[in-house]
Amino acid sequence: MSATTSARHRTTAAGPEGASVAGLLGEIADIGRDGARGGYSRPVFSTAELDLRQWFIAQAARRGLDVETDRNGILWAWWDRPGSVRQDAVVTGSHLDSVPGGGAFDGPLGVASALVAVDRLRERGLTPAKPLALAVFPEEEGSRFGVACLGSRLLTDAIDPDRARTLRDPHGDTFAEVAARAGLDPRFIGPDPEALGRIGSFVELHVEQGRGLIDLGRPVAIGSTILGHGRWRISVIGQGNHAGTTLMEDRHDPLIAAAAIVQAVRHAALQHPGARATVGRIVPVPGGTNVIASSVNLWLDVRHADDAVTAAVVERIHADARQAAAVEACSVELREESLSPTVHFDPALRHRLGELLPDAPVLPTGAGHDAGVLAAALPTAMLFVRNPTGVSHSPEEHVEDDDAEAGALALADVLEGLAGRA
Amino acid sequence: MSATTSARHRTTAAGPEGASVAGLLGEIADIGRDGARGGYSRPVFSTAELDLRQWFIAQAARRGLDVETDRNGILWAWWDRPGSVRQDAVVTGSHLDSVPGGGAFDGPLGVASALVAVDRLRERGLTPAKPLALAVFPEEEGSRFGVACLGSRLLTDAIDPDRARTLRDPHGDTFAEVAARAGLDPRFIGPDPEALGRIGSFVELHVEQGRGLIDLGRPVAIGSTILGHGRWRISVIGQGNHAGTTLMEDRHDPLIAAAAIVQAVRHAALQHPGARATVGRIVPVPGGTNVIASSVNLWLDVRHADDAVTAAVVERIHADARQAAAVEACSVELREESLSPTVHFDPALRHRLGELLPDAPVLPTGAGHDAGVLAAALPTAMLFVRNPTGVSHSPEEHVEDDDAEAGALALADVLEGLAGRA
Repeated sequence: MSATTSARHRTTAAGPEGASVAGLLGEIADIGRDGARGGYSRPVFSTAELDLRQWFIAQAARRGLDVETDRNGILWAWWDRPGSVRQDAVVTGSHLDSVPGGGAFDGPLGVASALVAVDRLRERGLTPAKPLALAVFPEEEGSRFGVACLGSRLLTDAIDPDRARTLRDPHGDTFAEVAARAGLDPRFIGPDPEALGRIGSFVELHVEQGRGLIDLGRPVAIGSTILGHGRWRISVIGQGNHAGTTLMEDRHDPLIAAAAIVQAVRHAALQHPGARATVGRIVPVPGGTNVIASSVNLWLDVRHADDAVTAAVVERIHADARQAAAVEACSVELREESLSPTVHFDPALRHRLGELLPDAPVLPTGAGHDAGVLAAALPTAMLFVRNPTGVSHSPEEHVEDDDAEAGALALADVLEGLAGRA
Repeated sequence: MSATTSARHRTTAAGPEGASVAGLLGEIADIGRDGARGGYSRPVFSTAELDLRQWFIAQAARRGLDVETDRNGILWAWWDRPGSVRQDAVVTGSHLDSVPGGGAFDGPLGVASALVAVDRLRERGLTPAKPLALAVFPEEEGSRFGVACLGSRLLTDAIDPDRARTLRDPHGDTFAEVAARAGLDPRFIGPDPEALGRIGSFVELHVEQGRGLIDLGRPVAIGSTILGHGRWRISVIGQGNHAGTTLMEDRHDPLIAAAAIVQAVRHAALQHPGARATVGRIVPVPGGTNVIASSVNLWLDVRHADDAVTAAVVERIHADARQAAAVEACSVELREESLSPTVHFDPALRHRLGELLPDAPVLPTGAGHDAGVLAAALPTAMLFVRNPTGVSHSPEEHVEDDDAEAGALALADVLEGLAGRA
């Protein structure tokens, strides 16, 4: 990947005929399957995610779009007239990376729908008045380097590039090392006002990750807000020792304290209606069956619409963690890894989407998205597509084919309305 | 490795001059260091452990010992006269594999001391009346395949070879696959009455993993008993989902139940004086920060001198685990991975060691050892060497050089006494 790969990816192929969202997702159904966990594990810059990027590049090229990879590893596929100025563009897109053992739709649905929306607009004979572009953002999930929406954060100056370069994946490799192996030059990651300056508005289509559309009996919704959320790493330090020879009363077992912290997390969230607090990742060190751990790392995810409540929940957990560690004569440290305030999508853009999709209800979401990070820099909006299981970040996540097509059609309507006819 | 590698390893080199236990351990001090956890990670059949085996083979060869690898991957280095019958042999040895992030002495101290004991006996001009052999057992820790003392269990018919072949390491590879890559033929693993029939007695020297010798102010002890111990895997099954969009009241989070189980383990052990119960390994699936786990595996290690108490502790934990899972609407399963009753070392052999080492105190241990498994098939005994930190399965494990030499000297005295002069 380099900033000047346009020529390599550009083709003169016409758009494919009869492509559907389900058909496109079927093409990538075997990439990154996780035999152990079920579902998909497609961490950013893994072989699986790189394969998905190549698939997107090929699909964009089949549609005659002009594909670039920018300095932050974001893919941009442009539909514009030769020589036209790339500014005030209408951009749509999502991500291709997944959580470990995730579903097939979180990310790829938005990318596949964007490709199909282009087909629908071509079928309508549209020549857009404003440039249109499809974007694919890296490390939306933060599953590999711990910071969600890393690509859009770098683009919008929401993370210090020095910090990003030194983030480590579970194998101990830095983002700089991994990005370099994927073809990026890590010296050049960071704020990109030029790339940002080309965008007039951004609309992300995403599978719904709750039950709102099930309850309403509708296939597509317009997003209103994203809950404020953050991630913290809690490290409990104790005394590693032999599980067979160390008397119970001689132990300083950090996993005992960590267990109390997991329960304190649940308890703290229940004190505040609407708050969500989760530990989904816990790693004892060294992690042997016959070894009392010397330390335990656990990761905390907290979300609430009121950012003050999020802060209060974390403060309560921190206090409880200190107490739990003290009981076991361990020490504890809590460190923020990322924090995003509640996002209210641009009211004018949301109003315009409501005009273009008069039947679509308006729903908030508890999940973070690149559209939420980009909202700090430009007008953004989201569309959600019904998920009949209400389950996400799991192999059970699902979208019916008809709903996927309805989503792509809604996206096409929105893009046409925002870009206008030339 | 094959059952007939004697010729390849046999050399005519004389024993090395001036070798010390500290010097031998210094030769392997850089093999298998764990930069992330500290200490050493030398899982069986890893590059590190295979390198240590080659080091042992070379050291044995320098001493003119005849090295074989048997069908179970156990190394045997023989000191006997050409044409003599290998039976009623006096065998000493230990293991070279480690727990993740373990110390430098657990296992290698016994191997290095055995080599130095041979040197001491040669310096005394001994020609042993009975054959002497040094043995190195694979997967003593059970850190890779979950069953401790796997090599000695296979040798003595204490584990079904079919079960051993299908044990999986954390990467999902089976013991059969990994053993085959290391040069074993996994079809032939299992009981080996011929190899066992050659041994008259087995004495294992090991770093002490508690504080007994510190309190007594002595460098070397004779072992009396090994606490009965077992391992169980507890699997809690819940409902994986998105950490941001799933309301607290809609969750079936198996990590909440697992946290309660970790605390129940501590509680159950405290009900029975002398009982030890530990969770040192816990793995949520899929293990993402923004993902409510769909399941959690945790491993339980329980030990007590009275096997009925061990059973009672596990039964109590199982009952508590069922209740903790039910509260969260999860299910739970507890499965035994290994179980070893309390071992009382052979009284006659222990008495003989007491005569040979009149100053050595007699101590029990809470740690499992190959000498404990072999005790079911033949007279075995153990020597423990003082550990000034009292800490084991940790980088803090330690042995002073002088104590290590005292241990090797005690082992030489024992071997000479048991083998006799020709």
